Amino acid sequence: MPIRCTSNNGFRITAPALQEAYKRAQSLNLRVKGVLVTNPSNPLGVALTRNELDLLVDFVDSTGVHLISDEIYSGTIFDSQTFVSVLEILTERRYDVVKPDVWKRVHVVYSLSKDLGLPGFRAAAIYSNNPIVVSTATKMSSFGLVSSQTQYLLSAMLSDKKFTEKYLVENRRRLKARHDMLVGGLLAAGIPCLPGNAGLFCWVDMGHLLSSRSFEAEYQLWEAVVKRVGLNISPGSSCHCEEPGWFRVCFANMSETTLQVAIRRLTLFVDSINASRNKRGNRSVSKTRVFPASFRRDSERSVCSVN
Amino acid sequence: MPIRCTSNNGFRITAPALQEAYKRAQSLNLRVKGVLVTNPSNPLGVALTRNELDLLVDFVDSTGVHLISDEIYSGTIFDSQTFVSVLEILTERRYDVVKPDVWKRVHVVYSLSKDLGLPGFRAAAIYSNNPIVVSTATKMSSFGLVSSQTQYLLSAMLSDKKFTEKYLVENRRRLKARHDMLVGGLLAAGIPCLPGNAGLFCWVDMGHLLSSRSFEAEYQLWEAVVKRVGLNISPGSSCHCEEPGWFRVCFANMSETTLQVAIRRLTLFVDSINASRNKRGNRSVSKTRVFPASFRRDSERSVCSVN
Repeated sequence: MPIRCTSNNGFRITAPALQEAYKRAQSLNLRVKGVLVTNPSNPLGVALTRNELDLLVDFVDSTGVHLISDEIYSGTIFDSQTFVSVLEILTERRYDVVKPDVWKRVHVVYSLSKDLGLPGFRAAAIYSNNPIVVSTATKMSSFGLVSSQTQYLLSAMLSDKKFTEKYLVENRRRLKARHDMLVGGLLAAGIPCLPGNAGLFCWVDMGHLLSSRSFEAEYQLWEAVVKRVGLNISPGSSCHCEEPGWFRVCFANMSETTLQVAIRRLTLFVDSINASRNKRGNRSVSKTRVFPASFRRDSERSVCSVN
Repeated sequence: MPIRCTSNNGFRITAPALQEAYKRAQSLNLRVKGVLVTNPSNPLGVALTRNELDLLVDFVDSTGVHLISDEIYSGTIFDSQTFVSVLEILTERRYDVVKPDVWKRVHVVYSLSKDLGLPGFRAAAIYSNNPIVVSTATKMSSFGLVSSQTQYLLSAMLSDKKFTEKYLVENRRRLKARHDMLVGGLLAAGIPCLPGNAGLFCWVDMGHLLSSRSFEAEYQLWEAVVKRVGLNISPGSSCHCEEPGWFRVCFANMSETTLQVAIRRLTLFVDSINASRNKRGNRSVSKTRVFPASFRRDSERSVCSVN
């Protein structure tokens, strides 16, 4: 049951949205066992605020459910804000002493896949103050142990203080540069992004390019971008977004040149839509003709996956 | 429900033993879903014969159950015999054509842990002609994928024909030398082994060292060997052996010097038991005094785990 977030407040989690999702689940006779969040958010590319974390902790406190916070992107924050883990909120509130039951219902998952760019290494962790969770995870882990060779490498890498400090600063610097390049490029093409401060992607508003405000039109736009622009960006509907027209665009898993090609192609694509609309009069374009096929230059034919 | 094998025929699998285990399970209202074997056998250190494989295939054919053959030690055969996989029997019988149902009920599991001495690399495989098994295993594998770093290394290693050919020959030669060293040493100490041709261990008969023919006495002997000889060998009872006095002794996961120390210690231990028995008259030794504490030389105090 998704927590409904909207563009009205930048897709922030609110107390009414939490309550509404909880009641919706109950009305469907679903037993709510926990809340799952990603912090920083995927697909928003935004870190949760202290206020959102407070709301979440209050919610699991009052409802008795668990909270699982996926902090896989916690090392990717690239603005001045410091990442705040939900476990810090619990510690500040001294829940280990004053609310040990809540203390045991909040769990954090983490992996080296995103922050260190090591998705193939299959190294991850669960942080929990719940002995049952830790004991079960320990038993389960014997079915998916990390290769000793990889453990050896990671151990050497992560214990190298000089390397890790330099890595975090440099990673942040490069992510910000890439993020700004994408946001600036899209804005110049008339496509606004949700202001972001983390993650390897932007949350992009292409609503004005839809032939109608519907998920069918969103799918059509996605398909056109895949087939005619050669880019695979994730439609919001695949992330449970309830407003058609939002897309997640990744900016970190390719070269700078590739990203520039992607932005140039998208710009031409938008220009061709606008030109087509101007010719036919805005809002009167037939659905089947909205995406011209021939704007792409041959020199940019190579497909770059931006998913 | 273990298939009962005995020393009478060198612990070979027989048709009556298979039937007896099957009936025993049925009489306990257990639904038998399959037979699990290790080929070469752990703990026997012996490869299954064609006759045993034929019996197993006939058994799963007539009963409709599955057969899972763990062939993790298939690369460790060190005599002139060639390893025969149960899948070869099926292929020779043309079961893919004449008995496709049996063809789909036989599965082989394998890992690089033993043959390549890479237990930490967590790389293993399931061979099956059953689409449901393969499809399920494929899905499940996403929870325990092999590290890409390890995949890269293994790929380079295993595609190096020159290396693998040399490795197999040299591994076999060394295993045979070690095996013969252990068997010869134990025999000189009056301890016979089951004739073996594979694996990283021997199946050793210490029945004559027991204070009585019972699993209690077997446990006492195991404890004495751990505490007073400094060796950890696996008692047969932990492998479902029904005759007290058998132990699995590993010979491959230590240096040659360590193995020699282990044999020397065991010899002294046996000598001290015999001396103690001769003094008191054979078979009249009290249980609590059967294992003298002071035979071990200080120079050999370092513990060598032979498990």
